[in-house]
Amino acid sequence: MLSVDEARTRILALLASTGDEIVTLADAAGRVLAAPVVARLTQPPFDVSAMDGFALRADDATIGTQLRIIGTAPAGHPFAGAVGPGEAVRLFTGSVVPAGADCIVIQEDTEHTDTTVTIRDAGHRGKHVRGAGLDFTTGDTLLEPGRRLTARDIGLAAAANHPWLTVHRKPVIAILATGDEIAMPGETIPPGGIVSSNSHALAAFVRANGGIPVILPIALDDRATIAAAARSAEHADLLITTGGASVGTHDLVQAGLCDLGLDVDFWKIAMRPGKPLMFGRIGRLPVLGLPGNPVSAMICALLFAKPAIERLSGLPGTAPRTEPALCTTPLPANDHRADHLRATIARADDGSWTVTPFGPQDSSMLRRLARADAVVLRAPDAPTAPAGTIVDIIRLTDCGL
Amino acid sequence: MLSVDEARTRILALLASTGDEIVTLADAAGRVLAAPVVARLTQPPFDVSAMDGFALRADDATIGTQLRIIGTAPAGHPFAGAVGPGEAVRLFTGSVVPAGADCIVIQEDTEHTDTTVTIRDAGHRGKHVRGAGLDFTTGDTLLEPGRRLTARDIGLAAAANHPWLTVHRKPVIAILATGDEIAMPGETIPPGGIVSSNSHALAAFVRANGGIPVILPIALDDRATIAAAARSAEHADLLITTGGASVGTHDLVQAGLCDLGLDVDFWKIAMRPGKPLMFGRIGRLPVLGLPGNPVSAMICALLFAKPAIERLSGLPGTAPRTEPALCTTPLPANDHRADHLRATIARADDGSWTVTPFGPQDSSMLRRLARADAVVLRAPDAPTAPAGTIVDIIRLTDCGL
Repeated sequence: MLSVDEARTRILALLASTGDEIVTLADAAGRVLAAPVVARLTQPPFDVSAMDGFALRADDATIGTQLRIIGTAPAGHPFAGAVGPGEAVRLFTGSVVPAGADCIVIQEDTEHTDTTVTIRDAGHRGKHVRGAGLDFTTGDTLLEPGRRLTARDIGLAAAANHPWLTVHRKPVIAILATGDEIAMPGETIPPGGIVSSNSHALAAFVRANGGIPVILPIALDDRATIAAAARSAEHADLLITTGGASVGTHDLVQAGLCDLGLDVDFWKIAMRPGKPLMFGRIGRLPVLGLPGNPVSAMICALLFAKPAIERLSGLPGTAPRTEPALCTTPLPANDHRADHLRATIARADDGSWTVTPFGPQDSSMLRRLARADAVVLRAPDAPTAPAGTIVDIIRLTDCGL
Repeated sequence: MLSVDEARTRILALLASTGDEIVTLADAAGRVLAAPVVARLTQPPFDVSAMDGFALRADDATIGTQLRIIGTAPAGHPFAGAVGPGEAVRLFTGSVVPAGADCIVIQEDTEHTDTTVTIRDAGHRGKHVRGAGLDFTTGDTLLEPGRRLTARDIGLAAAANHPWLTVHRKPVIAILATGDEIAMPGETIPPGGIVSSNSHALAAFVRANGGIPVILPIALDDRATIAAAARSAEHADLLITTGGASVGTHDLVQAGLCDLGLDVDFWKIAMRPGKPLMFGRIGRLPVLGLPGNPVSAMICALLFAKPAIERLSGLPGTAPRTEPALCTTPLPANDHRADHLRATIARADDGSWTVTPFGPQDSSMLRRLARADAVVLRAPDAPTAPAGTIVDIIRLTDCGL
């Protein structure tokens, strides 16, 4: 059986990032940058005041000096003249520091009328002045490709005068649920059947991770039907199937996909929940086959589909972020399969996080998965661990799950 | 001066959640639930097999017993008859367990032909059977109002047969940047001017936190213009302004809003960056005035606008989540203002996180804010702290920033 890391590495090795598109700044947050953002101007473009106050010559910034106010320069209205000895110009935050001045005395440190200002606290050269280029200079590379753009990045790109950004196209992820027994919510449920949950949960997960989900109609357990459904995913960047990636007679997904020319790499992964995983390609289309049990499908999506979507999106694609937490219960010895225990977390008085796994961990228990905050990672063959052991956890909601 | 917590409490006290709307399941992820999700069916609806194998009577599940295969029942195709002594029905994961059978022996633990199966590993009553209602039962409340729906919740609601969910309407957040000196990216920059960054960063932040941003046209520094711009925000659930929430003559935002009947609560907050904050109401419209400096605006958005959007969205609205990290540098004593040091984080060999504040922390340095991973919280009057001190951090990207 493959390890989780080996399987992820093999999946990522076969995926390439989508092409580029240009989007408006307003649509770029959360997208992955595909071309550097280079400063088109210097910021600030000139020396500006960091405060409301008076611009003057540092030589005049001594206590008790009285200066003549020769003008007022709000932000956006630079003073046209120069500040000479014994003179001051009233400024505001963001105002251009006028020629001749090299010091700002904030208004709280003055007494002033409309025409004169008296210094009540000494200044010095450069005080409360933000020099031109303090933030960045024309030509500086501000944001590198391969970065998922944050709200702060959007602000920075705006300040650098970019109304458009070049990003990777969002990957289209087709989702195919199969099974004679499943129905869409609100539709008639067949005898012995259940309502499909995987497609909807996966679609939300794909969207939260920056992909565009396309839910294909449910395919019945018939290889021709499955092949036809999968053919309609030709436009996608990745096809995710759920169910049928097992060894039973009625696991026809592989058979149906093989009819389309699937180059199949079928694995058992040394993990719980979710042992069987299928990965392969139909021509250029990568195919990831998740288990049918909802908890298994979701945990496998977290471990394999998330990095796959990231890689397609132009990111490296990595294992989900982990963090340490103190486990409040003892943990039994693990077998040879990496385990992922559904758990709740809480914050201890000292600010650290504690984690408490649920008791039964059946892979059909979706309600319990929904109530979980995190999974506890248990390495293969991990020994028993007493309560109070520090374990690695993955926070589910942070991962779009 | 108000503390950060006092200011947040006063803001939240004046906000109420938006009304309800019905959305399709596909659109409900990330939305805040406004009505409980009650199970419309029992899951599983009947005893089902957890594995591929054979259904039989537990009394027959002894090593060496040979049974007659009386049928095959794939998932979705229940066996119509009953299993008697000496009989077995072939099942697959999710198949209904037929009448008479109370045990599953997995196929790996058998030898079988098309007509007979020999037990090679003993079973017992209930083994590999998922009992009806293991996950939930008709009438169970599965999801409570006031919860932001995850991908897992969507899966659970689907499984419970809900094609529609009742959620809170996304709050509309109008964003008004003011100033004679600012231009939109790509537009002509006025003399002494800069490109607006706050509106765009805030819009991305609002969207990441579940709101609908509406960027109003930039208002010039003129109280009538500001009043007209703000009037166009009457439809919004919150108006956020940037700049002008200070004490300078050219801070006309308050004056313009007061002309519209702003009931103003203007505060200095004991925090850095971003001392001046305005909060009030124009009729039913809450107004949050952020500082104009981009870093101050973003940190204030994190501390005040995020919980405000949450409260409007139907959540309680809380301070951003913190976690402990080891600070790699010594920290000087703090003054009476809570500080928020921009910092990078890294993971130590033992799995814990370390944090390293930047040197200069000027509130105009947007590039540095974009490069930061977190802010370090420094309490008012915190004493000097040596390198290695555990501090509280807020991860910025996790907060939609």
